[in-house]
Amino acid sequence: MAEKEENKMEKIISLCKRRGFIFQGSEIYGGLAGTWDYGPYGVLLKNNVKNLWLKMFIYDREDMYPMDAAIIMNPKAWVASGHVSGFSDPTADGKQFNLMFKTQIGAGEESIISYLRPETAGGMFVNFKNVLDSLHPKIPFGLGQIGKAFRNEIAPRDFVFRSREFEQMEVEYFVKPGEWQKSFAEWRKVMLDWCEVIGLEKKHVHELEVPDGERAHYSKRTIDIEFDYPFGRKELYGLAYRTDFDLRSHATMSNTDLFYFEEETKERFVPHVIEPSLGVDRTILAVLIDAYTEDELGGETRTYLKFSPKLAPIKVAVFPLLKNKPQLVEKAREVYKTLKQEFGAVEFDDNGNIGKRYRRQDEIGTPFCVTVDFDTLEKGEGVTVRDRDTGKQERISEKDLIAYLKEKFS
Amino acid sequence: MAEKEENKMEKIISLCKRRGFIFQGSEIYGGLAGTWDYGPYGVLLKNNVKNLWLKMFIYDREDMYPMDAAIIMNPKAWVASGHVSGFSDPTADGKQFNLMFKTQIGAGEESIISYLRPETAGGMFVNFKNVLDSLHPKIPFGLGQIGKAFRNEIAPRDFVFRSREFEQMEVEYFVKPGEWQKSFAEWRKVMLDWCEVIGLEKKHVHELEVPDGERAHYSKRTIDIEFDYPFGRKELYGLAYRTDFDLRSHATMSNTDLFYFEEETKERFVPHVIEPSLGVDRTILAVLIDAYTEDELGGETRTYLKFSPKLAPIKVAVFPLLKNKPQLVEKAREVYKTLKQEFGAVEFDDNGNIGKRYRRQDEIGTPFCVTVDFDTLEKGEGVTVRDRDTGKQERISEKDLIAYLKEKFS
Repeated sequence: MAEKEENKMEKIISLCKRRGFIFQGSEIYGGLAGTWDYGPYGVLLKNNVKNLWLKMFIYDREDMYPMDAAIIMNPKAWVASGHVSGFSDPTADGKQFNLMFKTQIGAGEESIISYLRPETAGGMFVNFKNVLDSLHPKIPFGLGQIGKAFRNEIAPRDFVFRSREFEQMEVEYFVKPGEWQKSFAEWRKVMLDWCEVIGLEKKHVHELEVPDGERAHYSKRTIDIEFDYPFGRKELYGLAYRTDFDLRSHATMSNTDLFYFEEETKERFVPHVIEPSLGVDRTILAVLIDAYTEDELGGETRTYLKFSPKLAPIKVAVFPLLKNKPQLVEKAREVYKTLKQEFGAVEFDDNGNIGKRYRRQDEIGTPFCVTVDFDTLEKGEGVTVRDRDTGKQERISEKDLIAYLKEKFS
Repeated sequence: MAEKEENKMEKIISLCKRRGFIFQGSEIYGGLAGTWDYGPYGVLLKNNVKNLWLKMFIYDREDMYPMDAAIIMNPKAWVASGHVSGFSDPTADGKQFNLMFKTQIGAGEESIISYLRPETAGGMFVNFKNVLDSLHPKIPFGLGQIGKAFRNEIAPRDFVFRSREFEQMEVEYFVKPGEWQKSFAEWRKVMLDWCEVIGLEKKHVHELEVPDGERAHYSKRTIDIEFDYPFGRKELYGLAYRTDFDLRSHATMSNTDLFYFEEETKERFVPHVIEPSLGVDRTILAVLIDAYTEDELGGETRTYLKFSPKLAPIKVAVFPLLKNKPQLVEKAREVYKTLKQEFGAVEFDDNGNIGKRYRRQDEIGTPFCVTVDFDTLEKGEGVTVRDRDTGKQERISEKDLIAYLKEKFS
């Protein structure tokens, strides 16, 4: 990897720690390889990503239903899915090492061994019949789930790219056999739209048609969406046509009917499955990489995160010009309260000087900073609004402030 | 337990399965004791609970910061917290059985044994220094986290009350030594307010001052908020004064300074901690129990969930009176789209007859059903709005519909 790019990862990891986005897991104990803890701004960013996914992939559609299955499942589910026999990597000495974390459930003789799920998909297949019986959805329809998954990676690496504990946003979309191509094409478009909405640069996003022999055992077609990370072009998301592999395996293993009965045609069939699979942490990583920017402003080098306003952890910050002037502080708090009511994620800051506050908000990616100064108080001339990306300031009257910001966010 | 009350639990569990709220985990494989899968309406209800908690306990406050630490931590953290030595229950044959799930991290000689966290608290204490260094919060301040926790219960029971995998919403609030009483009292009030906001009946909610000798090893004062479940009065939430036990233990074990330095007074001290701890699943259970209602309507027995509109998975359902009249369906879809834009969680339903649709919406707790009929189309007389709790219908003009519903939801 080029030195400059290596440097970029180091800078991003450092910024994430310095500004409270992501910390090494269990850091004070020397860490635990492959685990990461999200700090306050990391959580806000992550929640924005998850809520946007819920909206685009589930809530705004009439054919999608949310699910939240348990992380620990009956081990038979992982026999059926092929993970017990086949989900392994070779270790240094050439032995196959199963990547599922094992744990013992229950005490004494009645205990059994099970696994932490290596993907959320299983929980949705296993509940296919429950969803049919309770909601009677019309095919095609899908289930979607956000949740943790775990893989005992032999060599976790590249920050949150390959970790042992991570979060997925997965859809299992059920279609009539023979009708998978149309839905595959539709979800492919949704995924590419998503990359644009979260602000990834088009030139960094690539589709890879995964060739025969390199796909997962269950897949007849897979497109990986790859991203140009500083450490190389690697997988960001995956879109797989899983055929009826999962439902058939679970039906056989559990001795349960997993058919869909179509009222109109009186047909009875095992649906086929399209799976758009997105990692939360890789999304965060790609967003951070494309948001990370260094430029020169007023003769000084500065760093900022050019998050889209949708994803920015804080939308607006409000400052009094000086902290030791009670009238400025009081007025600034009043503006802060009004904006918080409207935009939610708003910060008040009166620490240090104004330059230091700008630098901090730049580094956490806040699109706008509003400053209350003496002209606000004495001349009623409104507040200044500073744009993160250009550093330019405009004076906006107080009564127009909300409308001004709303328009910028739209 | 009284027969009627036992019956109530059975009825709630049955409704949860029938209507897609909560299913037994891994059900088609005969289940896995102590695990539960949330179906579509369960997820919507749960997300409403979590978002409300985030708002009331974190986002609306200026002294609270969200966190999201990993489930798997360095095992030393659980030695420091006392869980490795002391977190156990006796089994039937009298041996002490540690309730933490164990798992092996990594492969071969470099592997270590760690645990799935039995509470989210640990991840916040371990990141105390990271938060100080990155956000420089002023004491008193707190960290809050929503996340899964795991306990290998010997006898999981009572639906989602005591399960092996569950979700917590926890706050660790850091105060100056000697100033814990004020914050304890404030959080106590927040917790009681929360019980009211989520619609629990006051007569079912009780405070229990946990006496000496019965508190957890780290606590100097604990108030349990108990709830009258059909299976008895038991713990719903807990509020604990944890002293400086955790920060001191982690500081010693990790050989790290976990002091807070107060700029104004130049004092350096280990903060003390107040912990308001809420279970997501117990919240869902208590909300379901108090929402579950049977009455008589039009001479027939019916069941409905009288969720507060804030928590209801679906806010409004829209029906065409008949499904085989294209003009009715088209008009109803138009109304549906307008309401969905405004309220988000809105359903369109044209299955079966109108009575069946009402019964379904009653059982998932939808506060209002809007029906488009011939008078809507032919006379422009607006739509009917049916109130879930009274079953009464009002005719509302189309142009007043959003304002009418907004007022009902406020």
